[in-house]
Order: sequence, then structure tokens, then C-alpha cells
Amino acid sequence: MVEIRKPIFVETAVSAVMEHQLKAVSEVISIHACDNRRLSEPIYATNAIPSFDKSPYDGFAIKSSDTNGASKNCPVTFQVVDHIGAGELPTKKLQVNEATRIMTGAKIPEGADCVVMFEICHEFEQDGQPFIRLKREIPEGDNIMKEGSEIQKGDLLVEKGTLINPGIKALLATFGYHHVSVAKKPLVGIISTGTELLEIEEPLQPGKIRNSNAYMIASQVKRAGAEYRYYGQLADKLESSFGKIKSVLDEVDILITTGGVSVGDYDLMPAIYEKLGAEVLFNKVAMRPGSVTTVASMGSKLLFGLSGNPSACYVGFELFARPIIQTSLYNPNPFLKRTKAIMATSFLKANPFTRFVRGYIHFEKGTMVVHSAGMDKSNVVSSLAHTTCLMVLPGGSRGYKAGSVVDVLLLEDTEGQQSFEAFRKLKKEES
Amino acid sequence: MVEIRKPIFVETAVSAVMEHQLKAVSEVISIHACDNRRLSEPIYATNAIPSFDKSPYDGFAIKSSDTNGASKNCPVTFQVVDHIGAGELPTKKLQVNEATRIMTGAKIPEGADCVVMFEICHEFEQDGQPFIRLKREIPEGDNIMKEGSEIQKGDLLVEKGTLINPGIKALLATFGYHHVSVAKKPLVGIISTGTELLEIEEPLQPGKIRNSNAYMIASQVKRAGAEYRYYGQLADKLESSFGKIKSVLDEVDILITTGGVSVGDYDLMPAIYEKLGAEVLFNKVAMRPGSVTTVASMGSKLLFGLSGNPSACYVGFELFARPIIQTSLYNPNPFLKRTKAIMATSFLKANPFTRFVRGYIHFEKGTMVVHSAGMDKSNVVSSLAHTTCLMVLPGGSRGYKAGSVVDVLLLEDTEGQQSFEAFRKLKKEES
Repeated sequence: MVEIRKPIFVETAVSAVMEHQLKAVSEVISIHACDNRRLSEPIYATNAIPSFDKSPYDGFAIKSSDTNGASKNCPVTFQVVDHIGAGELPTKKLQVNEATRIMTGAKIPEGADCVVMFEICHEFEQDGQPFIRLKREIPEGDNIMKEGSEIQKGDLLVEKGTLINPGIKALLATFGYHHVSVAKKPLVGIISTGTELLEIEEPLQPGKIRNSNAYMIASQVKRAGAEYRYYGQLADKLESSFGKIKSVLDEVDILITTGGVSVGDYDLMPAIYEKLGAEVLFNKVAMRPGSVTTVASMGSKLLFGLSGNPSACYVGFELFARPIIQTSLYNPNPFLKRTKAIMATSFLKANPFTRFVRGYIHFEKGTMVVHSAGMDKSNVVSSLAHTTCLMVLPGGSRGYKAGSVVDVLLLEDTEGQQSFEAFRKLKKEES
Repeated sequence: MVEIRKPIFVETAVSAVMEHQLKAVSEVISIHACDNRRLSEPIYATNAIPSFDKSPYDGFAIKSSDTNGASKNCPVTFQVVDHIGAGELPTKKLQVNEATRIMTGAKIPEGADCVVMFEICHEFEQDGQPFIRLKREIPEGDNIMKEGSEIQKGDLLVEKGTLINPGIKALLATFGYHHVSVAKKPLVGIISTGTELLEIEEPLQPGKIRNSNAYMIASQVKRAGAEYRYYGQLADKLESSFGKIKSVLDEVDILITTGGVSVGDYDLMPAIYEKLGAEVLFNKVAMRPGSVTTVASMGSKLLFGLSGNPSACYVGFELFARPIIQTSLYNPNPFLKRTKAIMATSFLKANPFTRFVRGYIHFEKGTMVVHSAGMDKSNVVSSLAHTTCLMVLPGGSRGYKAGSVVDVLLLEDTEGQQSFEAFRKLKKEES
């Protein structure tokens, strides 16, 4: 009576999803709205930086050869014939022993080939005319930032797929990109199933719980860089649920359902996938929590059937839905960043399945220490509140002692990584 | 002629700003809009979890005492009298040797005190009636999640000031918070000064550069959790600049200006602070870049005069403006998270001032390695594009070799830290 499903490895399941690459779509938006979006085109320098020879300091622009032979005992004198603020243009070409007072960032006048800082000039007036006196030779090119010395016109500055942070926004502005080509956010539909669910505005009723998964997943979808639309809750009725899911599929790129994927009397999702003609990629994964996570494809669309259990739902989204969303944002590193951390908590009970334990990272002098985010029962929603990573405890015949080094998947990281490595091997313990 | 300013330590400057705490203001928003906002009130449990005794598995609810004496040779038989799905309510109180088929999450019926999983029951029919047979004794309370066993009504779940992530959004939904009290974002006005600046839509002109700082700061303001309003550019004219700044101050909580804070001929901000009657907290900090960073207060408002140099502007915002914005969001950990990392790059030239070098973090087997984000000239905007942290190189008589352990301030972190420690001491090198 109970259907027997054969679990597959997490990495096999991830690969199966990633084979169905979502199409990446580009759109053009205002620079004002571009924060935290990903570039759909590389940024090239539209001009050289600096775009003209400029002074990096306040000082006097002169011709270096006029200082030839200058010394403490034999100073040279320059008449100050012009004064250029940043953004102003030189009005005079310098003649022999003439100087221009120049401000930081201003254009070097014709006839000058170096800048002398205020501090080493003696300024004086003679017959109402400003002069400076110099007691040393100044080399040609001194204190001049040459046109193109930082960036040449046409230089590749930032790769496609990069997340726009304050520095990149500054680059976009510098090169006049007031409109920016970015990845369009895919639209993720969210549907909850389960007769036990109340909408959050409803008062609690005996035997029922409020629907928290839909709100949690909405937040995870946003963190993953996509848009969401919440389509409400379905009661555990096959016909009406099928109709709703079929119509929602026309509107979204990805459909996420929560609940109904197990093998219980009220779990309708398997029957709905069949009725839709969707190809089920897998419906059992060798992991805890979330072993019943199901993913199906239908044409270009993907259907994620996540568990109704909050922790399983959370983990299922991060492992399977987030990377495929990231590929549609041109991110060349779509997977969760994986690194190693020292466990602060013991998990002594062995489990044949790979466990993904919600945790948070604490830095201790440059070393990452990972703490369990709370009671690790899969149905404790409160343990998710402080989660910033998933500890990976590969399945096997033994538990893990505090002090062991384990893999962690970082959830708040935006850098990601290019490939998804296997979880199968047991890690050596280090103390 | 050139005003001499006395530099103060970075930590003294930070303290001076933090004494002028901005008032935190609360507002109530929809749960749908609450991602990445900070709670202005703690979250308490509005009901117990579970809110009723429930079954964690699919199985049969029975009375444990009915299994007394059951064994392989002496099985006991129960008649299945009811069937409860999740969200449904029991319709029957169990009598002796009666069982209720019960689904995961459903309410335990009256008369039952344990749940037996499908796997250990033998199901059969007799005269068209369903029965189960059990070959072992079941202890009282087995497989029952008791009301309140996870969370008691009134429990404090999350502290005020916490950033709302997917887990916290799930908690809010679980407890029916469809409206959420969050910190109102302070409004930060941004004004650029400098006759050399072009708006980004304008074609490049000789002697001029496009205004990138305003866009960069706007993005930093958003990352810091505040709203911004860009008020455009001011030419280096005292009267008109003063009038504009005075009127903008009526509209914003914080005013950030870029440029004009140095001691050059065109640096008008010192005169404007004086004319406004603002109290200048400091105008010279022992740091590179950004030594001319100026902060002034006027009543409850703060004025940040950041350097026109992009790197100095960036660092000045993160060190001085971000923490005070975070306090107005109720964040008890308003300062940039500080940890240690191994330098991948050498900085052999000594500098008497503490340097803040833009870098990015790379994890190598749980150890943080920090790389320089690019050429570290203070005027190279492209070096900011990949920045995720600031390396702190305390001032002194020597440089830093690759392999040294240095402090890093994490810019993409949202956890922060409670206090700002001194930067003065030279760190020991480790290789």
C-alpha cells in the first residue's frame, strides 16, 4: 500500500535539476534601481581614466626643464599666470618660467609637464604679481596622472553575472551607464497544500496551524534573487488542486509547492505530476531533512515539490531551487558557497543519510566556528530564525564530535561557487 | 594660508559620532514587505507550539494500556473507528481496543495516549471493518508531540533589532503577525560638490569627470539599511551651496556631502558648517584614505562631509555613517563585524596613519584569507568594485608582509558587533 521510493544522492539530485537550465533573460533598468541586481553584460570602459592629464594634488604646474640647475643656493622663480580649479580649463599655455596654480583633479595646462606641491614652493608677490620660488630640480612627469594611466578606453572592467554593489554602481556612473543591462528576475509561483493550514490573519483553530512555509519560501526566493507570487493554499482535493496548479504554471517560470509530496493518504502531488504529464526527476533524496523533496519538469518549467515540514522545506529550497535561479541570473557561481568550519556542537547519533543541520557561523580569530541554530528537530520553526548556514554531516555509521571539521554551506553569501561537490565521503575528525 | 588641522584617532572620531545617537522610530508594515528590515519590537509566541497534542507521523492513535501484555505470541487487536487527516478533527473518543488512523500533524483523539507507526501494524479487514494487530507493548506518550513542547505561549522568540530573514519571517507567520513593527529607515540626503562634476547622462568634457560618488554612496546607504534622496550637485559657490544645504537639512535625518572638505581654494564645506552654526565634531582623522573626513552636528541632524576622492568617500561612509544609521534601526550590534584574516598581499611601505585597504575575503578550508581588491591608489574607482571588506593596517614604522594576520572589517555581513575596538596597536606578524 505504501509506495517504495529509492533515494538518490543529493549531488545526483542537484545535477538532475541543473540539467534543466532556466533561460536567462536580460532587461534594461535605471542605474537608480540597479543595486543587488546581476549584470547581464560585461562593463567596458567608455573612456580612459583619467580622461585627460590631471593633477593629483593642489600645487603649481610648471615645465620641469625650467628647474634645471635649481638648488638651495640657486633658486628659480616662476610667475604665476593662471589659476585652474577642478573642472575648469587652463586658459594659458605656459611660457618659460611661468607657472599655473592648479587644484586637485584639474587639467594640466599646455606647456607644463610636472606639478609641484604647495608645501615645497615659496610664494611671494612682486609689483602686485604672484610668484613662486623653487630650490630644487623637479623631474618631468612628477605629480601628473597621465590620461589612461588607470584605465584604457575599451578595458573590460566587470564580468557579466556580477552582483552590483556600491563599487560597481560607482563604476557604472563613472562610465556614464545611466541605464544598466541586468538579468531579469525569474518569477516563482508559491502554492501551499494542506487542509490543516490557516492563513496568517485567521485565529488559531483546533487541529490547524498557520501557514508559515509560504512566507518563508517567499523570503528565500527574494534572497535567491527572484520574484515571487503567492497563489494561496490548496485543500487536499485532487481535481481543484490540479486545475489551480495547471493554470499557475502558465504564469510562472518555476512553481514551488509545499506539502503533499510524501506517501500519505492526503499527499496529492504525485498524482498531480502524473496528471500534468510532468517528468519527475526524483522524489526521494538520501538526505535529512527533506528526503521526500520532489522535482519535476514540464517543458521549460520546473516544479519543486517541497516538504510541508518547515525545515525540510527550507533545506530543499536552498539545495535545489536556489542554484537554478542563480543560473538564470547569469551567475557563473550559482551554488551555495561551501567552506569548512569547526563544529561547536556534537551530533553523536549516526544517520545513514547526509544531514543538513541549520547553523550559524561565528568567527574566532579568522577561524570559522559553526553552532547549531537551535533544537534540531525538523519541525521546530524557531531553529531557522538564526540560521546563516547549513552544516553538512555526511551519512554513515558514526556521529560527529564538537571540534570536528565539517563542511558548511553559506546562505547569506553572494559569491557562490562554480560547482557542487559530492557529500558522500566521511570527513576526518580534527580536534 | 593653509589651515593646519590636528588629526584624531579613528576610534575617537567614531565615538564622537556615536554620541549623537539618532532617534530610532518604529513603523508597522505588512509581513509581505518585511524582508531585510529590523524588528522594532521583540517577537513573542502568541500561542503554544504545538497548539494541541499532535502526531509527528502517519500511524494509528491508541491507548497504551490496551497493549499491556502484547507480544509476538500474544498480539492485541484494535478496531479502526476513525480516520483523521492533518487539519481535520477527531470525531470519536476512543473506547477500549479502538484505534484512529491519524496523519502527520493531526490532533490526537480523546482516549488515545500514543501513536503507532504504520510500519509496525498489521492491517486487516474483518466483516468489512478495518482492524490492526500489534505484537508489542507501546509506552504511554510514544510519538505524541505534546501541546507546548516546543514553544510556550508568551515565550520570547526573537529580540528587538534583529534583521528579518526567511526563518524569522516564518516565525512571524506562525504566530499570526500579519503586520510587523520594524525600524523606520532614516532618510539620508546626498549632495555632491565640485565644479568638475558632470551628471552621468552628460557626455564627457575636457577637464571634467562624471559624478560617481553620489551613486556609490546611494548604494552604501541602502546597504546600511537607510533610504536616500539625491539632491544633485553644487558648484563651488558659497552662497548658493549654503542655501541649498540649509533647505535640505529640513528634510533629512542625515546629510552626506561629497567633496569640498579639504583645505584647498575651492573647498567650501568648512565655511558652510560655520555659516550654518553646525558643531564640527572633527575634520581630520589619522587614517588613509579619508583623513579630511568631517562630521558636524546641528540639533538632531548629522552632516557627513566625505572626501570627493572615491575611496576616501567609501571608507568614510562605512566607518562613520553606517554605525549611526544602524543604531537608528535598533541594531544592538551597529559596528562593522571585525575579525582576523591572513593577508595574501604585502604592503611593505610603512605609513604613520592607519590604512583601510579595500579587499575581498576568500575562504581556504575554514581560514579567511584577504586579498587586495585592486591597485590600491585612493583614486582608482575600479578597485572598489570587488570590495567585500576593509583590511586594517595600523599605522606605524613598518609595512606588512603577505602571510601576516590583520584585522578585517566585513562590509557584506549583517550581524555586526557591539563595540568598536581601538586600531592603535601594531599586530604581531604570523607566517
